[in-house]
Amino acid sequence: MSWVRDPEFDRKKPFGPQTLPYGVVDAGAGPQVAVRAGDHALLLRSVAGELGRLADLVSGTSLDPLLAATRAEWSALRARLTDLVTGTGRPAGAVLVPLADVRALLPFTVGDYVDFYCSRYHAENVGRIMRPGAEPLLPNWTHLPVGYHGRSGTVVVSGTDVVRPHGQRKGSPLPQFGPSGRLDVEAEVGFVCGGPVARRVPTSGVADHIFGVVLVNDWSARDIQGWEYQPLGPFLGKSFATSVSAWVTPLEALAVARIPVPDPGHPRLPYLVEDSPWGLDLRLTLSWNGTVVSRPQFSDMSYSCAQQLAHMTVNGATVRPGDLFASGTVSGPDVGQRGCFLELSWGGREKITLADGSTRTFLEDGDTVVITATAPGEDGSVVGLAEVAGTVLPAED
Amino acid sequence: MSWVRDPEFDRKKPFGPQTLPYGVVDAGAGPQVAVRAGDHALLLRSVAGELGRLADLVSGTSLDPLLAATRAEWSALRARLTDLVTGTGRPAGAVLVPLADVRALLPFTVGDYVDFYCSRYHAENVGRIMRPGAEPLLPNWTHLPVGYHGRSGTVVVSGTDVVRPHGQRKGSPLPQFGPSGRLDVEAEVGFVCGGPVARRVPTSGVADHIFGVVLVNDWSARDIQGWEYQPLGPFLGKSFATSVSAWVTPLEALAVARIPVPDPGHPRLPYLVEDSPWGLDLRLTLSWNGTVVSRPQFSDMSYSCAQQLAHMTVNGATVRPGDLFASGTVSGPDVGQRGCFLELSWGGREKITLADGSTRTFLEDGDTVVITATAPGEDGSVVGLAEVAGTVLPAED
Repeated sequence: MSWVRDPEFDRKKPFGPQTLPYGVVDAGAGPQVAVRAGDHALLLRSVAGELGRLADLVSGTSLDPLLAATRAEWSALRARLTDLVTGTGRPAGAVLVPLADVRALLPFTVGDYVDFYCSRYHAENVGRIMRPGAEPLLPNWTHLPVGYHGRSGTVVVSGTDVVRPHGQRKGSPLPQFGPSGRLDVEAEVGFVCGGPVARRVPTSGVADHIFGVVLVNDWSARDIQGWEYQPLGPFLGKSFATSVSAWVTPLEALAVARIPVPDPGHPRLPYLVEDSPWGLDLRLTLSWNGTVVSRPQFSDMSYSCAQQLAHMTVNGATVRPGDLFASGTVSGPDVGQRGCFLELSWGGREKITLADGSTRTFLEDGDTVVITATAPGEDGSVVGLAEVAGTVLPAED
Repeated sequence: MSWVRDPEFDRKKPFGPQTLPYGVVDAGAGPQVAVRAGDHALLLRSVAGELGRLADLVSGTSLDPLLAATRAEWSALRARLTDLVTGTGRPAGAVLVPLADVRALLPFTVGDYVDFYCSRYHAENVGRIMRPGAEPLLPNWTHLPVGYHGRSGTVVVSGTDVVRPHGQRKGSPLPQFGPSGRLDVEAEVGFVCGGPVARRVPTSGVADHIFGVVLVNDWSARDIQGWEYQPLGPFLGKSFATSVSAWVTPLEALAVARIPVPDPGHPRLPYLVEDSPWGLDLRLTLSWNGTVVSRPQFSDMSYSCAQQLAHMTVNGATVRPGDLFASGTVSGPDVGQRGCFLELSWGGREKITLADGSTRTFLEDGDTVVITATAPGEDGSVVGLAEVAGTVLPAED
């Protein structure tokens, strides 16, 4: 039995020894890299003596040096930490702190942030809502993972409050200005890049260049977005905040969750063909003030992280440690699998009832949204992606 | 007479003492911050003793600490350096190196990169070319500076070669894949942000949050862009490379160049109103293999840098030192003022003849593009923005 005494540190629980995500916490002495074991954080500086030269990767105040390392080093460190936390004897000096007693910080410096749009169900629903009468899916969608760059400077860690943004929205004869009246979320899965700086990464190279996975809430002000987005895409409707999990689950922990993405029904260009599948069988929940309003399945996504990374770099663009890309809203074919309120309320026309009897279309001030996810692990275990949570604060002024 | 013996260091020349842009050069001993005097670089570490505590801002290997300083510090350093380079006595130890003997490096760490679309002439021309028969300007355009985020990781310094990108383009029944056949440039002006991290910067706060100005070549693969850009905007058609000047001209050097932007013909929302003008009277040249093919005027732009910054942050998004935003292609009403080849060749239909008699529509391998600009300075002087140059290399594979 492990020296880590925590009922959540169990192979049947999402943050058992099969998961071991990395984060950065402040337990009172400034930021430190930690690995999560159940509902505890093991401060890695406290066990540096057990890690040999790998300790250098996790002795700083962020995951940046770890992200800049190699897949072989990620694997060696994970193996060493697995031994360490599953052993019976507590390593001398090891500091294990309850999560309730630490502040989790944004764990890495975000380089470029790209947001994809890879759920066919989401894209079709949005098309029907935003462009009624027109073909919901544009011709490029089935041939490439549509994506765009977001604002990396406003990526925030789970638990950070989100202030309702101001902006322009459509009006006649002049546009209106004020706090967004259609504040929304998007439940997404994000991929944290690492390894050497690279260009033109093939689908087969993805495990060398993706370190791990987070959940993402791509907060969206639909009224601002709807007015601004043509012809160059979303800008201020998205750039006020993007929330990510405090804990990065290593890609290696998701080996059992790998599944093929759906067949597009036509040939793929060779650079998007996978020699082994990189779709992921992740089950998400989207909660609104404690009520689960949706259970999206990542297995419904039409492009994998390998295809996204290959696409993102096929033009010669570099990928750097700390670059982050997100899947796009995860939505499925059923109403209860839609990953944003725009879809759940069908453009604000259908009310969503919460457990307390209140109803919603878009977010009200004080509302809290939490996204969680799990994946199948080895031997029937379950692997967790740490929650991403955020509460809406009223607009300023 | 100044101790700097350089015929270009003259108030009548663009890089005289009225300009004094900052850059980072390697003169053989690694990156150092320098100020440009004519065609020489003064290495600032060599005159640290003359700068007092301001020396700390320019003793590193990039402009990052200087960008993170305050407007008052920028102003004090500029005043001190002006005294230093215009004095008659050479400061002890001062190292002045001909530009031909140094390698100029990307001078700062690019945070977020935003590209606007603020030339009415460019937007109208592109609308006519890309969406023939439709209203060229979309309804939002006259009310807000349309913009989107680009890829900061592929911002490169002037002189860096640009490899022709691969990508998907429209095809039937399947899209085509291969090197871009419609490689283009966009002549733009870029604004380098600095000062304390800020949110909701008013138009009156722009000089506290913009450190200086560069020229930008927003390389664009029109065939890739045309296929991918709906509905979320340009992505791989732009993200392979964006070139910037090696020297950042302080905003303070452009005080005389400030002019009002054109009246939009309708009221502006209050957050976009300027209490003093931040349009800039910059004259650009766009050269293709040595032939000047266009002379765009920045005075034709419909939104100022102050309006762009106010818009970019009005939703609560932060602006950080090192964030970069570009104006969008600078085009004027005349054919000879168009800032990209898409417009100059009217979508590839009209050939452009170069001085050697050769003709072009889009870029060929080996072609070199140079953008330069000047502005009016004090007492009839002329202020330079350093050139941004790049040469196209053949596609890989």
